[in-house]
Amino acid sequence: VAVVGASRDPAKVGHQVLRNLKASGFTGKLFPVNPRVREILGLIAYPSLEEISDRVDLAVVIVPAIAVPRVIDQCDGAGVSAAVIMSGGFREIGAEGEKIEQDLRDTLKRTKVRVIGPNCTGVDNPHIGLCMWLPLRKHGYISVVTQSGTVASAIKCWAENEGLGIAKCVTLGNRIDIDETDLLRYLGDDPLTRVIALYLESVSDGTRFLKAASDVSKRKPILALKGGRTQPGARAAVTHTRSIVGDDQIFQAAMKQCGVIRVQTTEELYDSSKALSYLTLPSGPNVLIVTSSGGSAILAADVCSDMGLELPPLTRSTEKTLRQKLPGYCIFSNPFDLTTTTADQFRVVVEENIHDPMIHAFLLIFGDPLLGASEVVDSFRPSTEKPIIVAYLGGGDVEDKERAIMHSRGIPVFPSPERAAQALGVLLVRSEYLREED
Amino acid sequence: VAVVGASRDPAKVGHQVLRNLKASGFTGKLFPVNPRVREILGLIAYPSLEEISDRVDLAVVIVPAIAVPRVIDQCDGAGVSAAVIMSGGFREIGAEGEKIEQDLRDTLKRTKVRVIGPNCTGVDNPHIGLCMWLPLRKHGYISVVTQSGTVASAIKCWAENEGLGIAKCVTLGNRIDIDETDLLRYLGDDPLTRVIALYLESVSDGTRFLKAASDVSKRKPILALKGGRTQPGARAAVTHTRSIVGDDQIFQAAMKQCGVIRVQTTEELYDSSKALSYLTLPSGPNVLIVTSSGGSAILAADVCSDMGLELPPLTRSTEKTLRQKLPGYCIFSNPFDLTTTTADQFRVVVEENIHDPMIHAFLLIFGDPLLGASEVVDSFRPSTEKPIIVAYLGGGDVEDKERAIMHSRGIPVFPSPERAAQALGVLLVRSEYLREED
Repeated sequence: VAVVGASRDPAKVGHQVLRNLKASGFTGKLFPVNPRVREILGLIAYPSLEEISDRVDLAVVIVPAIAVPRVIDQCDGAGVSAAVIMSGGFREIGAEGEKIEQDLRDTLKRTKVRVIGPNCTGVDNPHIGLCMWLPLRKHGYISVVTQSGTVASAIKCWAENEGLGIAKCVTLGNRIDIDETDLLRYLGDDPLTRVIALYLESVSDGTRFLKAASDVSKRKPILALKGGRTQPGARAAVTHTRSIVGDDQIFQAAMKQCGVIRVQTTEELYDSSKALSYLTLPSGPNVLIVTSSGGSAILAADVCSDMGLELPPLTRSTEKTLRQKLPGYCIFSNPFDLTTTTADQFRVVVEENIHDPMIHAFLLIFGDPLLGASEVVDSFRPSTEKPIIVAYLGGGDVEDKERAIMHSRGIPVFPSPERAAQALGVLLVRSEYLREED
Repeated sequence: VAVVGASRDPAKVGHQVLRNLKASGFTGKLFPVNPRVREILGLIAYPSLEEISDRVDLAVVIVPAIAVPRVIDQCDGAGVSAAVIMSGGFREIGAEGEKIEQDLRDTLKRTKVRVIGPNCTGVDNPHIGLCMWLPLRKHGYISVVTQSGTVASAIKCWAENEGLGIAKCVTLGNRIDIDETDLLRYLGDDPLTRVIALYLESVSDGTRFLKAASDVSKRKPILALKGGRTQPGARAAVTHTRSIVGDDQIFQAAMKQCGVIRVQTTEELYDSSKALSYLTLPSGPNVLIVTSSGGSAILAADVCSDMGLELPPLTRSTEKTLRQKLPGYCIFSNPFDLTTTTADQFRVVVEENIHDPMIHAFLLIFGDPLLGASEVVDSFRPSTEKPIIVAYLGGGDVEDKERAIMHSRGIPVFPSPERAAQALGVLLVRSEYLREED
């Protein structure tokens, strides 16, 4: 990877990108390109792309906008077939930038270089340590395609902090070449991507997008957060030509038709991605809530109801068995409220219901400093196809510890009963879509 | 404070409560009461309340349910006028417990002891280190009254982790004596409480509650999260007699009438509490969004619109001045998008608009690793009555650092544009209520 416009000045993006690639542990070779210096961050700097004797697979371009078309020509000359243009100063700044962007488009037409950007915050593939905007050390299975660098960064930071990580991330910028549709197709075939999370304000080519989304969503879940669903939001969003959006209801209908699951907030995009990458799908709407907190279970039940999930009663024989095994102060119902409890009592309740064909999913709410919660959840995973979704809250230091253990084992944990129930609802939406397609 | 039923066994609540009181730095004296041991956690244990020669202001009771009425009699005999009964095993476990609870009620009638609980997770006053269920080291201005120990714990943990802390917390349990209405009146007069956050499934006496809430909400904001707004949620909630709830629309109307702001999720209860305790109220609905992230600002604009907030355009003269002071690639509009930026450029935009009577609030979205964000926000606080609400996301380590600085200075920070806009909307609701009351 060549970083064209690498800089020794820590305040410059051309420095930060190189530093982040190093900090992420990039597994390939890095070639800073800058004709004015000989070394940056301990790496030999090259005066131009042509001077690099190794093969260069990707150029990251961070030179002033006016110089970008020439760099793309140089990429073409040096046999570099892909570039991520992070430089700003194109059509987003008005007429002057529009002209440079047109020059760049013309350049692309006569070269073979494929481009992401310009005016983007780079791409990430933490599986090989290729992270441009922020250093990432964790890698996972969520891939992000976005028109907002910050929405991507937020998801990356949350996934990094939780130790789950992401698979790949592409910020589209002005998307003069590669767009969300290309990336849907690419990520649809990427074995490390289990879920595709989109943030869009518009779609560059509606027909192509719908076709690709319909194809890909048959084998992989796609989530979409759309900015500009209200009038003030839409006014704030730059509206691109040939966009299918504008009217929010049309967008909603189009997404539903092609199997894309729409979410409403940045956190919901992350939560749903987490659930879809790490949990199996329920084969029906029935969930058993097992809880140490009555209040949290009621709040979860409310959101379950909003999401079309159902809470069937315990069977008579299960209730009878559980009454023998557990203290009398438990509430033997659904939600099953253990009240004062140990993590192991959660195991007893799940065990008795795990083979019940009328229970399709479990929602466990740990609402106290419950040691061993991670062990209990983990113990069921080899033996069941049913999703077990976890909310953990109000547990202080013990919660922090158990949460970290669960995340390290690929068990997603949600910070409130409502967010867990919402994420479980998304699993149901996905499973119902797949059943209809069948 | 006497802990009746204190234990040497770390697995028991009677041990944990004592440990938590010590860990929270309780400023008064602690008297473990346990006739079978002489010392617990380095403190002299007393065989009974009567043996304590110092004055005891409060007894925390953690003995088996059957022994609780006798302990209350002993409190009365020893001149202890207040008790928090954490023991479970009362009406929540069925007929047998119902009988003990009736005994307890009878005991209360013939004594002067006032009681919180039973079956609760204690009370907290971190200002004096009196924390029973979890050790808390921070103290702030949010007070919580709740029918769910876990909802309280979640808010306490979030506030503790953010360094903001809470003022007071009371978990009601079976509320056989002191109820939410008593606590509303008490907290309404508590100088350290700036906002009262309620989690309720029902109200023990609707008429009394409405009267108290109407009085208190004139001088202090009250927030309410209600569990059981849907049929499955309501089924999960135990319905108490003489409750005004049941039909959710009636609850909604009653809350509105007495000035209580209703929220929908645990996180919203916390976010709204944070905003109301630390920010001034806007004198109107007009907000200027200043952002380094276009996408986040669009998402914020969408939620602002949902919440009745408006985004007026910049005045012509302000726009002219800002065009002179800032780079041409900024989007000189509302949202004002600085794109690639420094924290200091946020200052320039706020400065130019701070005296504009058409701008009632600022929403700043830091969407990158922006050093110095805290300084900028802090610098405006002495000179303006207008609320400046902050969202910070996608900023990695820098964000973590700046967030901690802001929280240490009492500037609330929200983790997504949507949550910040939602919280600002709650400030507007509160300010409009006060204007109508005027």
